[in-house]
Amino acid sequence: MNDALAPFQRLEHQRETFPDGLQLDCGAVVAPLVVAYRTHGRLNAARSNAVLVCHALTGDQYVAETHPLTGKPGWWEAVVGPGLPIDTDRYFVICANVLGGCMGSSGPPEEMTDAEGRPQGRPWGIDFPSVTIRDMVRAQKRLVDALGITRLMAVVGGSMGGMQVLEWAATFPEMVVAAAPIATATHHSAQNIAFHEVGRAAIHGDPDWMAGRYWEDGRIPAKGLSVARMVAHITYLSEAALGRKFGRKLRGASALTFLEDVFEVESYLRHQGSTFVRRFDANSYLTITRAMDYFDLSAEFGGELGAAFRGTATRFLVASFSSDWLFPTEESRALVRALNAAAANVSFVEIASDKGHDAFLLDEPVFHRALGGFLRGAAERVGA
Amino acid sequence: MNDALAPFQRLEHQRETFPDGLQLDCGAVVAPLVVAYRTHGRLNAARSNAVLVCHALTGDQYVAETHPLTGKPGWWEAVVGPGLPIDTDRYFVICANVLGGCMGSSGPPEEMTDAEGRPQGRPWGIDFPSVTIRDMVRAQKRLVDALGITRLMAVVGGSMGGMQVLEWAATFPEMVVAAAPIATATHHSAQNIAFHEVGRAAIHGDPDWMAGRYWEDGRIPAKGLSVARMVAHITYLSEAALGRKFGRKLRGASALTFLEDVFEVESYLRHQGSTFVRRFDANSYLTITRAMDYFDLSAEFGGELGAAFRGTATRFLVASFSSDWLFPTEESRALVRALNAAAANVSFVEIASDKGHDAFLLDEPVFHRALGGFLRGAAERVGA
Repeated sequence: MNDALAPFQRLEHQRETFPDGLQLDCGAVVAPLVVAYRTHGRLNAARSNAVLVCHALTGDQYVAETHPLTGKPGWWEAVVGPGLPIDTDRYFVICANVLGGCMGSSGPPEEMTDAEGRPQGRPWGIDFPSVTIRDMVRAQKRLVDALGITRLMAVVGGSMGGMQVLEWAATFPEMVVAAAPIATATHHSAQNIAFHEVGRAAIHGDPDWMAGRYWEDGRIPAKGLSVARMVAHITYLSEAALGRKFGRKLRGASALTFLEDVFEVESYLRHQGSTFVRRFDANSYLTITRAMDYFDLSAEFGGELGAAFRGTATRFLVASFSSDWLFPTEESRALVRALNAAAANVSFVEIASDKGHDAFLLDEPVFHRALGGFLRGAAERVGA
Repeated sequence: MNDALAPFQRLEHQRETFPDGLQLDCGAVVAPLVVAYRTHGRLNAARSNAVLVCHALTGDQYVAETHPLTGKPGWWEAVVGPGLPIDTDRYFVICANVLGGCMGSSGPPEEMTDAEGRPQGRPWGIDFPSVTIRDMVRAQKRLVDALGITRLMAVVGGSMGGMQVLEWAATFPEMVVAAAPIATATHHSAQNIAFHEVGRAAIHGDPDWMAGRYWEDGRIPAKGLSVARMVAHITYLSEAALGRKFGRKLRGASALTFLEDVFEVESYLRHQGSTFVRRFDANSYLTITRAMDYFDLSAEFGGELGAAFRGTATRFLVASFSSDWLFPTEESRALVRALNAAAANVSFVEIASDKGHDAFLLDEPVFHRALGGFLRGAAERVGA
């Protein structure tokens, strides 16, 4: 393996290894399949209280504990924990790093293997195969099986996590008692694809990207990845949130100075970009944004979204946030219409919030009450 | 001068030169001041029928004729021409390249001069001073004076052009009979600044940017400038327009192929980026985006927007487009409220359109009728 490991590669993770590997939608086989994960709470004797939490594009398995690299709180500590909506006193919570990620699951920074699973002495890098949201879910399914769980009390996630929730409910309906797709959509829109493409173009344009083989020279396409993160970060916030947080406030100056980087929002964004490159791999970013762009649940079911859920016994909570312009409420409504057409049991709530897409990660009491109540209902149904 | 001229530098432009130069808001002097411009129609004997058109960030003076570099129609041929809203059979239309631009007016690609106006044998490049929207307007004022015009029948422009319209009306109210600020705002929002900063970070991150001295080696930071254009282009379109135009259409394939650049919207954006770098200078892009970010009309008038227009005799037409999320209607409404508070004569129209910010450039009959009627009214008042 290359000595020039990025910070996120020096970590040890809790992992499950599946020697037979996984065949992906693109046809390639990743063998062995490795799934890094964390759990919280205790699985009850009936194995009926498992809640799978699916993370978003730049999230990981450290959902409810201090992140081993950044030292920051877990990404959903507002939601997952004792007495919280995803109550670790009652439920057994599982969160796995997605396939294609960079926190220990099979993905570009991990050691490449050949078709027989023999290590190749170098990272996959750009040669890691294309993955889909369905591939991510199949990898999670292997983990859930290995944990001896035949039915998940709930699958919950926001943004790309919500895409996985939908794919779980469509692909393994008998395993999913309750599903909560949050701030998400059944497909990625042209605008969303376009923003991702800007980020990818920035990475591709960075000479340190080295056509994806940056590991060979111990480099990181930090500038390109940073720009990708900056543009994505804007899409996660509402105009109102940016305006309230920064407005036109100047940095360390009371009047216009005609210097670079004069506005606070600029230094904030640059900070977001520069810290991101320490914890995320560029090839993983390319792989996962592609997976999101490919996602089109309707296309998987012959162009008819309702067919994805026909006859389902899964109960759904669909939640959107009013100021989310990346995954607007209208896209959640379209999902709800399809679920209704399939005669599914579905609750829908649009949360009034001016915090944009990121609201699903933040302190939103109305959302938390809705999710908590939904999960208690699921627990009652399965006697957990 | 450097031999390695970019395509836009090999052009000859109609220009007016002011040897005494212009003192800028930042304190620097640009001497001589050069203003490249085009005119259409004929100035009447009373010199009362002049309409100044102000261009947007990446526009130029070729408003109503084939662009000398791209061979494409002028950027506002839908609006400026015989029998059109800005009727060149009736009005004398002036359009100047903005200060800091790259189509012949004083700006980064032009030859640098010292404080006494002596040429320095190299382009200004990164050393071109910071400019403001007010500086741009002051430069246009010099041109208008030189053309022997003491009063403009109208000043019209969209986006950054609209910022110039507002600055004209606030700074030289006695010279402006009618003002039409379109799809614009009295200040740049935090979100707008943030998107600009992404573009600047992409340019700064391109090794061919050479800290702004790319001319010295005959380079162009094409990749960075292309990414900047891509992200900006997304903000010019509505989600609906992108969805209608591209949706999730695949490029030359009927099913997902797991190849790069599979979606039509991606290749479209890349094309937008790669053609832009042939006609636009990176240092001009940095200079002009900064000028937009600095713009805050209220701050120029002691924090009170109404003070910018107090006692004005100028008549205003404020127009916004319903799906414009870069300059939302709410920002036009705030402008209208300030104009009302100043007892100004103002008409406001929000055009129902799903084409986003770019709608002001496109075929929008309701908008064109409103603008045409507004200008005919102004012509009647001045007897033009």
